[in-house]
Amino acid sequence: MRRVAVVGVGHTKFGKRDAGWRDLVQEAGKLAFDNVDNLEPKDIESFFVGAAQPERFAFLTHVAPLAAEMLGITPRKIIARTELACASGQAAIRYAYAAIAAGLTDIAMVVGVEKMFMPDMLEAQSNMTCVLDREWDGVNGLSAPPFFAMCAQRHMYEYGTTREQMAMVRVKNQKFASKNELAQFYGKEFTVDQVVNSKPVSMPLCLLDCSGITDGGAAMILVEASLARQFTDTPIYILGTGQASIGNLINGLPGLANWDACRIAAEEAYRSARITPDDVDIAETHDCFTISEIIEYEELGFCKKGEGGKFVEEGQSDIGGKVVVNTRGGLLGMGHPLGATALSQAIELFWQFRGEVPKYRYVDGAEIGITHNLSGSASVHSIMIYGRG
Amino acid sequence: MRRVAVVGVGHTKFGKRDAGWRDLVQEAGKLAFDNVDNLEPKDIESFFVGAAQPERFAFLTHVAPLAAEMLGITPRKIIARTELACASGQAAIRYAYAAIAAGLTDIAMVVGVEKMFMPDMLEAQSNMTCVLDREWDGVNGLSAPPFFAMCAQRHMYEYGTTREQMAMVRVKNQKFASKNELAQFYGKEFTVDQVVNSKPVSMPLCLLDCSGITDGGAAMILVEASLARQFTDTPIYILGTGQASIGNLINGLPGLANWDACRIAAEEAYRSARITPDDVDIAETHDCFTISEIIEYEELGFCKKGEGGKFVEEGQSDIGGKVVVNTRGGLLGMGHPLGATALSQAIELFWQFRGEVPKYRYVDGAEIGITHNLSGSASVHSIMIYGRG
Repeated sequence: MRRVAVVGVGHTKFGKRDAGWRDLVQEAGKLAFDNVDNLEPKDIESFFVGAAQPERFAFLTHVAPLAAEMLGITPRKIIARTELACASGQAAIRYAYAAIAAGLTDIAMVVGVEKMFMPDMLEAQSNMTCVLDREWDGVNGLSAPPFFAMCAQRHMYEYGTTREQMAMVRVKNQKFASKNELAQFYGKEFTVDQVVNSKPVSMPLCLLDCSGITDGGAAMILVEASLARQFTDTPIYILGTGQASIGNLINGLPGLANWDACRIAAEEAYRSARITPDDVDIAETHDCFTISEIIEYEELGFCKKGEGGKFVEEGQSDIGGKVVVNTRGGLLGMGHPLGATALSQAIELFWQFRGEVPKYRYVDGAEIGITHNLSGSASVHSIMIYGRG
Repeated sequence: MRRVAVVGVGHTKFGKRDAGWRDLVQEAGKLAFDNVDNLEPKDIESFFVGAAQPERFAFLTHVAPLAAEMLGITPRKIIARTELACASGQAAIRYAYAAIAAGLTDIAMVVGVEKMFMPDMLEAQSNMTCVLDREWDGVNGLSAPPFFAMCAQRHMYEYGTTREQMAMVRVKNQKFASKNELAQFYGKEFTVDQVVNSKPVSMPLCLLDCSGITDGGAAMILVEASLARQFTDTPIYILGTGQASIGNLINGLPGLANWDACRIAAEEAYRSARITPDDVDIAETHDCFTISEIIEYEELGFCKKGEGGKFVEEGQSDIGGKVVVNTRGGLLGMGHPLGATALSQAIELFWQFRGEVPKYRYVDGAEIGITHNLSGSASVHSIMIYGRG
């Protein structure tokens, strides 16, 4: 199996953008080309697009060729779009990784993009109801907020996690986002009180416990590792990957407070990267809701099961802690443009490893990082491990 | 790079089905498990779904986990859905191929499915308008039929291809479909006169020059080649692959009667399989319209450029000819459930190589076969090459 390196990245501003789906592709892709040496669109052999629902949000399909054309790319090896709801972007990265590792292609671009703001936001909301099973769970009122609220209730019941500990996840991630100009919720900090007293959504989750509807795009250039130095002096590398899926309907899940698929995916990712959770310096995890990040600490092996609340409260996921989590600002602070999120996470590690983030969020000496996405009813977990060298 | 084998397949009846999206998944998947030895759903490590537009046709997304759950599969390695419009199924096969070839997984299932009949067929038609670029080409009235009609007009002008030669494609493919119980248009044969005099759609293309709106599902089980004999005595193998994409909007295409991306993809496929077009015994090509198959003969290298019309007229693509094309009945006779088509084509080769097709369409001694899909404005071409041994 051949090694794979990341040599260039591009990241648009996330938020409510006065830009369409294809504009976001073009903006992210151009930034990636500007960021890499000796590489032009014509050199891209393979092209992968991660996008969750362009069919409904933008009435577009066959989106990979559309995006390729927007960037002047004419792929001669592989082209496809991947969908895995909130993990669509990571699915695209993984396909590119597999194709390069197999020897089917040497130079690939991955673009993740989602245009979620619509003229009628009720339609956008309706689109989001089919991220969980719309026909079975949806008709009973289950969309993402009530599902994750049930997870929170169960976690509080089983492990004594507190409302305030959940709020601390947002406070930490928002502290990072407040200074990150790419973030949807740039320029604001929140206190625990503000989170707890924000507008109720699905109790115990309030508005500030939830990630937003977001427009955004991000792009990465991946190459076979031996070629990497042609394009940058400081490539980063994919060290391993893991993914697991258990169930889809909530009646098939092993539990609400334990996410077995996350643990299984993490074990496979660590095994394939030949590391343990103790080797992880920095993590970008899928904090679609505050409770998610707490459960993820546990299932990713950063702390014992049930101690996720304590982990954030003690500052173990903040700068100076055991594993610094979500220095971009997380989904909570950055926003969550479905197809772009996984790329945004990977790009944060790329910048961190290269020392290209501002001091307020720099994790000095970080060598190994993990990105994690969940999708659906937390039934699927997708993990990539990246390393500095 | 590791070799990849196909060890089991399942294929639903294509047509207007009294079955939903998930029913089609279950039916195809169960047939595949019934068709293979020593393999149960729990043994499937990775799961790939090819589906073009479940978001619009069935208001479903996150469809790979949904399909996995319908089949009792809990993937522990890779799970994703691929989209590439009419080539969505082949994109899923290619991802599985890359993942196994790379060593990321050993045992994978690929399911291709599309539920296209809707209560309101105007909505289904509207969904199909975004297979080409809806924002730019669509607003000028360009959907698939007028686009391929322009290709036909240009091919007639440049090469003297006749209206009757196009009709002969349907006559040949329908001859096969008429006896294939899995085909949407089973039980009917057409004459050249009937095709030419069928209802005008976009001239010169008439109704019988066009493939249909179709419900259908198909499934394949792919494994690392050294494991294949555990599951069947007669595996078939993936020998090579090629894919190319040039443009998306029609103003960016190199031409209408020449499909350069098809030629480039074919060259790469032949190179990777270490064969020439002369080695191909049997082909499943993307006859979404009759003219498509004629241009494909040329770009796939079965005959010289411009001689595709003559090729079908001389019977070179029929049983006993140079390359037998579309023995299932093609998209024209089988119907075209977008995500399922590429799998249906591969399954035909699987059955052919194993001698499991009825005598009327059996290509005796076939060793090497090709499957081809186009998508969008014939701007993307996707090719797989399969072999008996």
